[in-house]
Amino acid sequence: MRIARIATEKGQRPVVQLGERWQEIADPFATTLVHTGVDHPIHGARLLAPVDPTVVIGMAHNGSPAERSRPPQAFMKSARTVTGPDDPIELDDRLGQVHIETELAIVIRRTSRNLTAADVPAAIVGYTIGNDVTAVDQIPLDEMMTQAKNGGGFTPVGPWIETDLDPTSIPMTVHVNGEKVVTSDTGKLARNVTEILVYVTGFLTLGAGDIVLTGCPGTFAPVKPGDVSTVSIDGIGALTNPVR
Amino acid sequence: MRIARIATEKGQRPVVQLGERWQEIADPFATTLVHTGVDHPIHGARLLAPVDPTVVIGMAHNGSPAERSRPPQAFMKSARTVTGPDDPIELDDRLGQVHIETELAIVIRRTSRNLTAADVPAAIVGYTIGNDVTAVDQIPLDEMMTQAKNGGGFTPVGPWIETDLDPTSIPMTVHVNGEKVVTSDTGKLARNVTEILVYVTGFLTLGAGDIVLTGCPGTFAPVKPGDVSTVSIDGIGALTNPVR
Repeated sequence: MRIARIATEKGQRPVVQLGERWQEIADPFATTLVHTGVDHPIHGARLLAPVDPTVVIGMAHNGSPAERSRPPQAFMKSARTVTGPDDPIELDDRLGQVHIETELAIVIRRTSRNLTAADVPAAIVGYTIGNDVTAVDQIPLDEMMTQAKNGGGFTPVGPWIETDLDPTSIPMTVHVNGEKVVTSDTGKLARNVTEILVYVTGFLTLGAGDIVLTGCPGTFAPVKPGDVSTVSIDGIGALTNPVR
Repeated sequence: MRIARIATEKGQRPVVQLGERWQEIADPFATTLVHTGVDHPIHGARLLAPVDPTVVIGMAHNGSPAERSRPPQAFMKSARTVTGPDDPIELDDRLGQVHIETELAIVIRRTSRNLTAADVPAAIVGYTIGNDVTAVDQIPLDEMMTQAKNGGGFTPVGPWIETDLDPTSIPMTVHVNGEKVVTSDTGKLARNVTEILVYVTGFLTLGAGDIVLTGCPGTFAPVKPGDVSTVSIDGIGALTNPVR
């Protein structure tokens, strides 16, 4: 099932797809979705970031099985970097070279702390695509990656949340200007979704709408102004953003 | 002038102090405050965190003049850690020893990116007190400090915003259980308010209500469950929180 957020004449609305219609729902985080009775055609709807997170977490060195030998490492991104489909990724000459990164993004359903593996499924609404845009020239200058991860529009997410997805081993791609640059697979992540959420909620509280980016299994590509970034994950879809 | 946020029967309200009354205002970030005509007695009002930030930034190794020899270093705290006066700091045995830290906190007025020194005064509403609670045993385990900085209630702020404060050299103290443990001064910070905001907004966007913690000039103390933390800054006031 796809849960999205669309712009309507009356403001932003959470919606669920039913056939060729987006059906408005009261609360995208409810375990049973309540329909409001208002719907919109799929075609032509303006999709926004599916959630408005308070906390955005990324996972460092989680991109290959070999990285299991290192301790897990989380970092935070500013919630002000979150944008939706078709919103621009804003480059800034002063930050140097920028990479786009396809990542599986976990969407949190409810307040979650000290989760056990058994708690994880109920804590998740589903998965979306996250583009963990990174100013790579800043990484050697800043061990905490604050300078590298927080430029304008540096965390596109969307196009929607897929609630029925087995995240174990899904193909992922990066396209620049419509050309495929990289393919990989969520199965290459050092730590899986359950391990990541048990780790992260061991020291901080996540809540409804928060986003956890699970890491980059080689799915990155350099971009420059004028490029078009498309990050895609099988079973979810594709997220396209202009670079300017 | 003191701008605060209080709990009222009708919900949270931004207010400004006028004599012995809190006067409700329409928007605490406006350059000219508009009064709504509703007021409340100072005595007995329940103070909340004066703002509800989207981004909370801390400054690492900014606590002594000698640290100017190192590059500036910012880190992010989860906005979910922000609490107000009298809210509990929640310890967790699994995180080890925790320190409280008195810090001068800058409150941002409006969207701010690539500020120059001349832009800084207009970008600031004023100053409040921040307690940058830190699980110090986690620091050697996590170079990004994500594990150290994000426990429950780890960023008390308040009790209000002081709009007329010269932050250059103000005495700061830490009390535990009413006993003074440390005194220091904002003049010991390696980089001042202007330098910090020019640095931070060079790579990320701050917005209305965001908080920048300026660093800890020796103003820290260990706490244990049952303690009472009080962090204070001359010209602002004192912020007290129970530790549990």
